[in-house]
Amino acid sequence: MSVPSLADLSLADVYRARRRIEGRVRHAPLVESQSLSALAGVPVFLKLETVQPTGSFKVRGATNALGHLAEQGCRKVVTASTGNHGRAVAHAARTLGIDATVCMSALVPANKVDAVRALGAHVRIVGKSQDEAEHDALRLVREEGFAYVPPFDDPHVIAGQATIGLEIVEALPDVANIVVPLSGGGLFAGVAFAARSANRAIGLTGVTMARGAAMHASLVAGQPVLVEEVATLADSLGGGIGLENRYTYALTRDLIDQTVLLDEASIARGIAHAYRHERLVVEGAAAVGIAALLDGVLPAGRIGRGPLVLIVTGANIDMDLHRRIVDADSMQPDSTQSGLHPIS
Amino acid sequence: MSVPSLADLSLADVYRARRRIEGRVRHAPLVESQSLSALAGVPVFLKLETVQPTGSFKVRGATNALGHLAEQGCRKVVTASTGNHGRAVAHAARTLGIDATVCMSALVPANKVDAVRALGAHVRIVGKSQDEAEHDALRLVREEGFAYVPPFDDPHVIAGQATIGLEIVEALPDVANIVVPLSGGGLFAGVAFAARSANRAIGLTGVTMARGAAMHASLVAGQPVLVEEVATLADSLGGGIGLENRYTYALTRDLIDQTVLLDEASIARGIAHAYRHERLVVEGAAAVGIAALLDGVLPAGRIGRGPLVLIVTGANIDMDLHRRIVDADSMQPDSTQSGLHPIS
Repeated sequence: MSVPSLADLSLADVYRARRRIEGRVRHAPLVESQSLSALAGVPVFLKLETVQPTGSFKVRGATNALGHLAEQGCRKVVTASTGNHGRAVAHAARTLGIDATVCMSALVPANKVDAVRALGAHVRIVGKSQDEAEHDALRLVREEGFAYVPPFDDPHVIAGQATIGLEIVEALPDVANIVVPLSGGGLFAGVAFAARSANRAIGLTGVTMARGAAMHASLVAGQPVLVEEVATLADSLGGGIGLENRYTYALTRDLIDQTVLLDEASIARGIAHAYRHERLVVEGAAAVGIAALLDGVLPAGRIGRGPLVLIVTGANIDMDLHRRIVDADSMQPDSTQSGLHPIS
Repeated sequence: MSVPSLADLSLADVYRARRRIEGRVRHAPLVESQSLSALAGVPVFLKLETVQPTGSFKVRGATNALGHLAEQGCRKVVTASTGNHGRAVAHAARTLGIDATVCMSALVPANKVDAVRALGAHVRIVGKSQDEAEHDALRLVREEGFAYVPPFDDPHVIAGQATIGLEIVEALPDVANIVVPLSGGGLFAGVAFAARSANRAIGLTGVTMARGAAMHASLVAGQPVLVEEVATLADSLGGGIGLENRYTYALTRDLIDQTVLLDEASIARGIAHAYRHERLVVEGAAAVGIAALLDGVLPAGRIGRGPLVLIVTGANIDMDLHRRIVDADSMQPDSTQSGLHPIS
């Protein structure tokens, strides 16, 4: 549980990241949740990354990574993400005046293609699987001098996400616990690194879906492993961590106190609670901290010590799906209380 | 259309307000709306006061007014609002460590009473109408040394709301038009004063509901008049401006370019559009700028000149009502396009 002395990441890198992204990324509000504070018995704050350009925290890491590349003279970057990372790279490239290409398979739905194009990036449609698109992106790196922007396993991406941790401990120096949606580990590693740099006693919880959680499976196995991808409401948390993982696996392993796994019904309850009680539209991946608290699965010991922060990572949910979730929740016998288990 | 040289309001007062409320009120994000920019043909930005404590911009004026009173040695304040202003006064009093009392009639619903109590204010239940509650509040001022905090017609409240205008022109010096929900005129007067102090050419539009809009009726009559209150989705815009209005009527009259009136169906479309396309939960009063743009009623001439800002004032809507509105909207034949009239 010591702060890792990675040669590749220092607090100075996080300060550098903050300077690079300033004016391009928002200082997300840290808002106390009345409903969740009452439930948890300690002040619960939501870090609202939903207000970021492109609707997710991913712009922080992407903007820092591209900013660093631009300083090295790089003028064209490529990635293969069709989700929040792809949009973040497109947005970051536009704010920095460099060229972004996003490789996608022919099976990617038109609305996702349009969203990336609308942000000014070039879209390359290649093959019929995400693997083929990824393969083409790496070919552009080898043969055409593009720089690749990894979605999480990169020191500059991690340092960019770490600015969230810095904002939290600066605004709330007494924070006792931070709850982070856990996927590839870029967000977790960054936030955990910045938080523990400020206070080694801060509790750090990763929350993810019960099935298809690659980082959790890797932590259990003691090394990066592959998992089968499973459809989930927390779709932004899907995907592997890479068998050749260089940074996020080790950082997450060294800094995490516990992992909480959620079933789909819990994630839906988290989405509905955010809407009904916090007037927030959040995607499944962003609702997992709220869902864990509603399930009462966060440990009493840590929570008892003081303020708790949940990182609400993004808002990119299909709105028909969102409406179906909140409609279904409102049909519950006592929807305002469903899933509430007070934590003593 | 000149900047009023009111002895009671100067730009220095707005700077003073900003210093007073700093750390107690959030610097609300100014977020570009892709959907509305595409519709209007100019960049459209939303000023998201929904992130404020208590969920509305009203904390700005209340915090400045109470901060000023506290500097004068005042330790107890009273108001009679049961809505956003009442909650804002309660919140401001708590952050400043002074005592707040909110007078309400016995007919106010329990959830509104509880919301004010939860913010630490004393609640006095008096009589069976808002007039009786107001009367009692003024008695406390005369007989027991309380200071009254007016909801809008007060230089410190106006200066507090004016900080929104300051934030807009500082973040977006090229702003060509600002669209402001229009009610008692505290927000409009403050924002208009700050904006015109920066640039006399900025267009200023007030938007309100078609029926029961006291400021609009007063502007038409050439003096403050009474109107009958009518139920509306934009409930925060209801109420009179006071026949003895001292500040907001004259400031609004001198600074406003036009008033746009909306029917209830338009306001509902604005709420549904904010949800579906911006992933925002907003109250009716906060949706009127979006609704006006969807209706195509904002004048092309002004809009054509450059960036447009809509102030999204708050999120305090009953969530069952919100869900019914977005459900009804999704039943429309082509809900994503309903009410869209491109502005040439």
